Amino acid sequence: MTDLPKRVVIHEEGPREGFQIEPGPIATADKVRFCEALAETGLRDVQCVSFVDARRVPGMADAADVARSIRQRPNVQYSALALNLRGYEQAVKTPLHIAGHLQMSASNTFSIRNTNKDNAETLTEQRRQLAFFRDRGIAVESAIVMTCFGCNFEGAVAPETVRDCVGSLLALADEFGIALDRVRLADTVGWASPAGIQRVVGLVRDTWPDLRLALHLHDTRGTGLANALMGLQMGIDGFDSSCAGLGGCPFAGHKGAAGNICTEDLAFMCAEMGIETGIDLDALIDCARMAEEIVGHTLPGKIMHGGSLSQYRRGAHA
Amino acid sequence: MTDLPKRVVIHEEGPREGFQIEPGPIATADKVRFCEALAETGLRDVQCVSFVDARRVPGMADAADVARSIRQRPNVQYSALALNLRGYEQAVKTPLHIAGHLQMSASNTFSIRNTNKDNAETLTEQRRQLAFFRDRGIAVESAIVMTCFGCNFEGAVAPETVRDCVGSLLALADEFGIALDRVRLADTVGWASPAGIQRVVGLVRDTWPDLRLALHLHDTRGTGLANALMGLQMGIDGFDSSCAGLGGCPFAGHKGAAGNICTEDLAFMCAEMGIETGIDLDALIDCARMAEEIVGHTLPGKIMHGGSLSQYRRGAHA
Repeated sequence: MTDLPKRVVIHEEGPREGFQIEPGPIATADKVRFCEALAETGLRDVQCVSFVDARRVPGMADAADVARSIRQRPNVQYSALALNLRGYEQAVKTPLHIAGHLQMSASNTFSIRNTNKDNAETLTEQRRQLAFFRDRGIAVESAIVMTCFGCNFEGAVAPETVRDCVGSLLALADEFGIALDRVRLADTVGWASPAGIQRVVGLVRDTWPDLRLALHLHDTRGTGLANALMGLQMGIDGFDSSCAGLGGCPFAGHKGAAGNICTEDLAFMCAEMGIETGIDLDALIDCARMAEEIVGHTLPGKIMHGGSLSQYRRGAHA
Repeated sequence: MTDLPKRVVIHEEGPREGFQIEPGPIATADKVRFCEALAETGLRDVQCVSFVDARRVPGMADAADVARSIRQRPNVQYSALALNLRGYEQAVKTPLHIAGHLQMSASNTFSIRNTNKDNAETLTEQRRQLAFFRDRGIAVESAIVMTCFGCNFEGAVAPETVRDCVGSLLALADEFGIALDRVRLADTVGWASPAGIQRVVGLVRDTWPDLRLALHLHDTRGTGLANALMGLQMGIDGFDSSCAGLGGCPFAGHKGAAGNICTEDLAFMCAEMGIETGIDLDALIDCARMAEEIVGHTLPGKIMHGGSLSQYRRGAHA
């Protein structure tokens, strides 16, 4: 495990992932207190809402209210996701951080189902967004490639296709004079295995050795943390994850779509491996339990049910 | 991943793990059809029941009935677990395979809570069992060391303690002229992390380079398959697991005790990594869904909810 990073940066997506997919209505005040609690755990980057079509995603209809109600503490980035110019126009009116990013999907069919745009149209749309970001002074921080490891519509995705997508997004950023902080490789519909991580990350890294990568993993088939482990072993130091394992993709094409890997389970694994996350694990477990209370049903996170080891270590050493 | 085994042997514990802990009564016929279905998936070793004190484990009160009702097919080992002579005496009266094994716990306190015997008494009991096995012609196949990675009562467990336990059991086997096929290292209460696997497996392997090892992992804190991945990377080619993630330890000392790692999720990960298990994944997923139907609630396995990839691969390539 010689390539393990010393420290990983976790981008928390639980509020956005969870509130967009939960079937029942969730009170705005509950969304707000969950975001505020997450920001007390040591997480430095909490994605609170998305600005999307409320007819397609009713759980985000109150996104602007949530955004304005959160009491922001220092040194935490409270961010909003948008997928198109209409969303960005709404987002800039709120006090949330706009995470300007580029995106495309390694599966053209997924792209059409997810955004109503094929890959060529997506690149055209990205140019419009980049012009918008430039005009509004919004920094473009990352690019994300979706369905990097497979797609329910197109099947297996070749690592070379992912590499070409990364290349397209890097060229686009370059065209606008932007140096991307990171490229995020997303297992949007849960096809990744440790072998897939190794192949895709390996090829992208071989092509751009100095490019910082992050993994966005869903735990659809149980290998989420094993995939994260393989990423860590390859030196990946950025992960998107979701407190309590909240979420799932509403457009994945099947009902079994699972949420992101669980933040507190990932934080536990990192801590046990001596990798810093800056997270107070017990505080984060409390947030996960709050999430279960808010949504009113069991969520897939494990350590919130198993309990952290700190209680036993204290007891054993007392 | 150069030390990956070409093939792993999976020891299925779902029926025994699950039926011993489910709170409601489960019909004998359901237990039988579940064992029979598992044996049709390519699994070669199905642990069907345990012979234990029915007052402590009411779900096993019908163990002898289950054992006698299963229609055994060829080339599958239908086994019974026993923990003491009384249990072995009951087991030998059934048509099930008796998995003669040695066991001790790396945590003395866990041993007392689990079996009412401390480590010294456990070794004495093992001698009585070895004499019984010899008299009855029962082969002793493996030894298991429990709580190898930590214990809720004693806290962290030093790898050296595990090594000493393995040494004690190997010496005991040697005393009776037995060459053990495998030593199983168990994360009985879900303390393991990939780093813990690396430390413990590393030390045991350094001490006995030719000893075949297996891992018995519980997914209490979400790292179950990541721990398995680390084991695979160290060449471990034997795993205990549980269809649908059935189970949990009734004596672990806290209610969050989770079941073994999920067999079909493990089999999926192995298949995606090119490691043979001999398992028909879709047939095993059907068994997991049968298990949910039998117990009447959601079980923790992931791929049975997310679905295997074969349907999408077929569709995509059609």
